[in-house]
Amino acid sequence: MKKWAMIGTWKMSYDGIDKASAVLEEGGSAGDAVELAIRQVEDCPDFTSVGFGGLPNELGEVELDAAYMNGKTLGIGAVAAVKDCKNPISIARDLSNEKFNCFLVGEGAERFASLKGFEKKNMLSPEANDQYEKRKKEIIEENLSPYDGHDTVGIIGLDKNGHMVVGTSTSGLFMKKPGRVGDSPIIGSGFYVDEKIGGASCTGLGEDIMKGCLSYEAVRRMEEGLSPKEIAQPLVDEFSKKLEKRQGKAGAISIIVMDKNGNWAIGTNVEFSFVVARELEGIGTYLASVDGNRVKIHKI
Amino acid sequence: MKKWAMIGTWKMSYDGIDKASAVLEEGGSAGDAVELAIRQVEDCPDFTSVGFGGLPNELGEVELDAAYMNGKTLGIGAVAAVKDCKNPISIARDLSNEKFNCFLVGEGAERFASLKGFEKKNMLSPEANDQYEKRKKEIIEENLSPYDGHDTVGIIGLDKNGHMVVGTSTSGLFMKKPGRVGDSPIIGSGFYVDEKIGGASCTGLGEDIMKGCLSYEAVRRMEEGLSPKEIAQPLVDEFSKKLEKRQGKAGAISIIVMDKNGNWAIGTNVEFSFVVARELEGIGTYLASVDGNRVKIHKI
Repeated sequence: MKKWAMIGTWKMSYDGIDKASAVLEEGGSAGDAVELAIRQVEDCPDFTSVGFGGLPNELGEVELDAAYMNGKTLGIGAVAAVKDCKNPISIARDLSNEKFNCFLVGEGAERFASLKGFEKKNMLSPEANDQYEKRKKEIIEENLSPYDGHDTVGIIGLDKNGHMVVGTSTSGLFMKKPGRVGDSPIIGSGFYVDEKIGGASCTGLGEDIMKGCLSYEAVRRMEEGLSPKEIAQPLVDEFSKKLEKRQGKAGAISIIVMDKNGNWAIGTNVEFSFVVARELEGIGTYLASVDGNRVKIHKI
Repeated sequence: MKKWAMIGTWKMSYDGIDKASAVLEEGGSAGDAVELAIRQVEDCPDFTSVGFGGLPNELGEVELDAAYMNGKTLGIGAVAAVKDCKNPISIARDLSNEKFNCFLVGEGAERFASLKGFEKKNMLSPEANDQYEKRKKEIIEENLSPYDGHDTVGIIGLDKNGHMVVGTSTSGLFMKKPGRVGDSPIIGSGFYVDEKIGGASCTGLGEDIMKGCLSYEAVRRMEEGLSPKEIAQPLVDEFSKKLEKRQGKAGAISIIVMDKNGNWAIGTNVEFSFVVARELEGIGTYLASVDGNRVKIHKI
């Protein structure tokens, strides 16, 4: 038997991980725990970058991305640019059982979800709509760059049977172009897990994270024998430098990494909060702040 | 100055690579050469897995995926599940210059293409429609698995200035579900290039290729100092075995790999044709056949 563990990006994952911890404590599966935790974030209107209440695209529509990966079979399911779907993570999990057609986008994904009976919902909350109208006005009046806010919930779960799963869900870049897909539903970039090794998930500017396939790279380094601590921050540092050289600047990048024994670490080039829960240790929220070349982590 | 080189998946890439070779010979850019070569394949109605004439999804609609990566900047552009766009590769190339919103899918991608003035076209050829009707009948009458045919054109180009680019284009799995996305537009899976190292592109069952981030992994191994020959076939062999263990079976996987000096190799677990053109050597089409545990390659 293993000791269960979970790690999730951003403090918004607290309530979901808290509930899901009970599932793992009782011997439930990593898949059930990760799905439950992410649904909790999707359902909460207070979080402006995931699910209901997520900030809309430049046309004022909420388009959502989500993915699910099974660390035992390497099965993946993902949806991108889906509208009116209450819980994209559940659609992604369902797709992860498919041999073909496991990544569906746009109308096709919505059609699949309807045929499978997944719950529909208008995902634009009144608050998100107000934010949109305000931002649109600011962009026009102050000639601002429209893009802002892109926090994905990514959660890695390890259950008592040693199974590992990773899931992600996001509304993507605020004011994104319709149909834009970031790293969150992209295997290797937004997520990767192999339960014989470990898992990883990223959040930040998807367009930049994708260029490094950072979640895959983190798991690969674990396979070589490095610990999460030896991987997470060095990987973000190296890759940020590479992007600075190649394109002048690196966007926000944060990564969570957990190995098959529940050892974890994070890496980031911006202020980044995250949540960890482990058997016998309970749950905690942490804040990582970048201070020059050093990243300091403290419990909050 | 470097010696230019190109490699492309499947013999359908011959005419495009032949034309694009002249561009590289005259000192033209890898980007122009790769785009030209792929447009040639997209425009030809004889190829049933790319562009015009590509086989449709289960609703009889041709949905196309394409991607472009710039090996200098690591800039990527991709579209997935786009209808009625004559040359998806050109849209992908255009998107590769964007800092945000570089991967667009479905209606959003079509909207972007329209606004940017890209040519529209009904991509369903009469022949592809006949194939669709025939297959639909067979599936119903003989209770066959619908999925068949999934050949992506993937082309890596190296120009005299040492710049490298990779592009992909496909209509995906024949009879796929609407909105299905394979590996072709997914960075790290369908393609990857870093011109300080080399590039790679995959074709085959996208759902399986994605699970290994095979194009990224090939380039990473080149960065470690391995040659394309030491990478390509071993990578496909290793990963096919891994999939057999984890999910019982591995789908078709083929990879082309080229380093920054134009040295190339391929790896495959099925019969696979490809085209290579190099400065001073001219162009050739090759066929790789799997014979037990060995892959034999001969010029055709």
